[in-house]
Amino acid sequence: MPPIVTLTTDFGLSDHYAGVMKGVILGICPKAQIVDITHECGAYNISEAAFTIAQAYRYFPAKSVHVVVVDPGVGTARRPILVEAAGQFFVGPDNGVFGLILSREKHKVRVISNERYFLRPVSRTFHGRDLFAPVAAHLARGIPPSRIGKGIDDYLQPKPSSGTVLKVDRFGNIITSFPAADFPHEQFTLLVGKGKVTRFAANYAQFGRGELFAIAGSSGYIEISVEKGSAAKLLGVAPGAPVRLSAPRRSGRPDS
Amino acid sequence: MPPIVTLTTDFGLSDHYAGVMKGVILGICPKAQIVDITHECGAYNISEAAFTIAQAYRYFPAKSVHVVVVDPGVGTARRPILVEAAGQFFVGPDNGVFGLILSREKHKVRVISNERYFLRPVSRTFHGRDLFAPVAAHLARGIPPSRIGKGIDDYLQPKPSSGTVLKVDRFGNIITSFPAADFPHEQFTLLVGKGKVTRFAANYAQFGRGELFAIAGSSGYIEISVEKGSAAKLLGVAPGAPVRLSAPRRSGRPDS
Amino acid sequence: MPPIVTLTTDFGLSDHYAGVMKGVILGICPKAQIVDITHECGAYNISEAAFTIAQAYRYFPAKSVHVVVVDPGVGTARRPILVEAAGQFFVGPDNGVFGLILSREKHKVRVISNERYFLRPVSRTFHGRDLFAPVAAHLARGIPPSRIGKGIDDYLQPKPSSGTVLKVDRFGNIITSFPAADFPHEQFTLLVGKGKVTRFAANYAQFGRGELFAIAGSSGYIEISVEKGSAAKLLGVAPGAPVRLSAPRRSGRPDS
Repeated sequence: MPPIVTLTTDFGLSDHYAGVMKGVILGICPKAQIVDITHECGAYNISEAAFTIAQAYRYFPAKSVHVVVVDPGVGTARRPILVEAAGQFFVGPDNGVFGLILSREKHKVRVISNERYFLRPVSRTFHGRDLFAPVAAHLARGIPPSRIGKGIDDYLQPKPSSGTVLKVDRFGNIITSFPAADFPHEQFTLLVGKGKVTRFAANYAQFGRGELFAIAGSSGYIEISVEKGSAAKLLGVAPGAPVRLSAPRRSGRPDS
Repeated sequence: MPPIVTLTTDFGLSDHYAGVMKGVILGICPKAQIVDITHECGAYNISEAAFTIAQAYRYFPAKSVHVVVVDPGVGTARRPILVEAAGQFFVGPDNGVFGLILSREKHKVRVISNERYFLRPVSRTFHGRDLFAPVAAHLARGIPPSRIGKGIDDYLQPKPSSGTVLKVDRFGNIITSFPAADFPHEQFTLLVGKGKVTRFAANYAQFGRGELFAIAGSSGYIEISVEKGSAAKLLGVAPGAPVRLSAPRRSGRPDS
Repeated sequence: MPPIVTLTTDFGLSDHYAGVMKGVILGICPKAQIVDITHECGAYNISEAAFTIAQAYRYFPAKSVHVVVVDPGVGTARRPILVEAAGQFFVGPDNGVFGLILSREKHKVRVISNERYFLRPVSRTFHGRDLFAPVAAHLARGIPPSRIGKGIDDYLQPKPSSGTVLKVDRFGNIITSFPAADFPHEQFTLLVGKGKVTRFAANYAQFGRGELFAIAGSSGYIEISVEKGSAAKLLGVAPGAPVRLSAPRRSGRPDS
């Protein structure tokens, strides 16, 4: 079976960047099946990248290697990481792009440190080419993850009470980063933008016109909506905005 | 020879949808060569998808599987179909996206019904992922078409006298869905938008300024043009607009 | 190892053109790994295509075949060429798209003339499909270059003193086609747009506000900048604009 490497970036499609990453991957792993998830994430939009890869990975076979390069901190101290989760590999910066996967799947995180698998010299500005692409290609070829770097515990983890706006859909519904599966249906408060939300709806028509509510969206995340209106406009928020949840102690979250 | 699966959709390139379809395909048929024809069809624009796939399929080798997902009726009673034509396979909704191929090639149409080849549970909103991608991948792997579903006769067929505007080019020429090969050169009337066309031109300069004419375009379809002007503006039409042909009884149309 | 064919065009992603080229390639070389560098070069923008492929090819393995179709002269007397350089193949029109590679790498240029490797009949408008894609696929399959056509010496070559604006970045810096490696650091004049540049900077902050200077950019080419401003606006230039260099006799340029 040819190994799969997917790409999710904010490089756009006009420049040579995505093509160059593919050249590097194929030089190391000539049989790789390379799949573009998207190169049109908003520039530096970590939330959007996190949402995109979290929506996509479940449909890929075991051992797929997912590279995410939305990396405003490239060249700084932020660490490159390899996440093993759901039988697949995730390669990218430790900046939250894998946050939704970390909060949903059992996982092991390693720091990418073995320079043997880098393209040298490593530039300060294009780790997609020099670091993430070659490491992904070596993993796709079958290098064991332990060779890439040591396990770490101090990676960026989403806090259960702190979320973000992942996306605003064309109706103005706000897709948050809170998984719908274990969200409290009562006694909660979501603080978002200029307002707060305290009611949970079973369907979109449950509340009256103009009333804000939370609902389990088709994306698998809690969405904030308002009957016949744009919740995003009403609350004044855009992707990346923080959402804070206060609620009574939640039950343990299943890991798989 | 690795099997080929092509994709033609209106999903755009910013979201995870096309990537997810590829994950599903590669999970079933790991060696597939997946080719994007386009994901930039206008939203719900069946005519544009029909034109795009009809322009592309001839350049693909035998047994290629073409998936077209421009599907405003997803979740309704419209049927999913498999078309066998020109030694290739076409998978998509029975809504006209294969109309130009059906009118040009000998064909057999099956309803896609064998749930064994679906991704279950089948959602109401994303048959590209749950139905068309997996069926295409199974066909690419070599499953015989007869296993997908029974042959049907009551699929949507283009009527010889009813056409549509497939595209308006940047000069304002109107590309219609009437194949140039068997179009009458005289004694015809094309009713389109605010006007009608009754003359056939051998070249673009044959008629005077401002006069409408039909011409055999480089696309293989009848185009409506006007010397030094925009036929689309003059007639007030856009892609998807109906074009009606009245003509004396036409000779039989060759099937291949 | 599956052979690699890359594509760099100005076709955009809405139409069937890029997909059709891939169908042609896979019909001839079914195992090809096809990589899109970009299909979003500006229409007819030869400089942009030249810059894009020159930035990309170094990251591809030996024997990769790079197809560039930005070809305003298609159908005219401009010749199709095959360039062998850096252990790779470059296929496209003889119009300057390979200029930066020719000025940097040892090379051999052939005219593409053996119609046996074309898709016939060759159209006047789509050599990407009828000529460049099939020739590239045959090369990818292992046909020796000598079969494609004879070596020529009278191909379009960049003159050392004549350059162009390859790109303007979002800060207004002008990326020229002069390689940074062998550029004189003093006693030079660059004539560009409404002004001239005679100073070379080691870093961006070396000169005062409003002063134009040349600098070795991260792209590997000489860039023209102005501290805290847009050099492109100041000089009134856009991609494709000519840049003329006068300088004392330059030392020989290394070929590899």
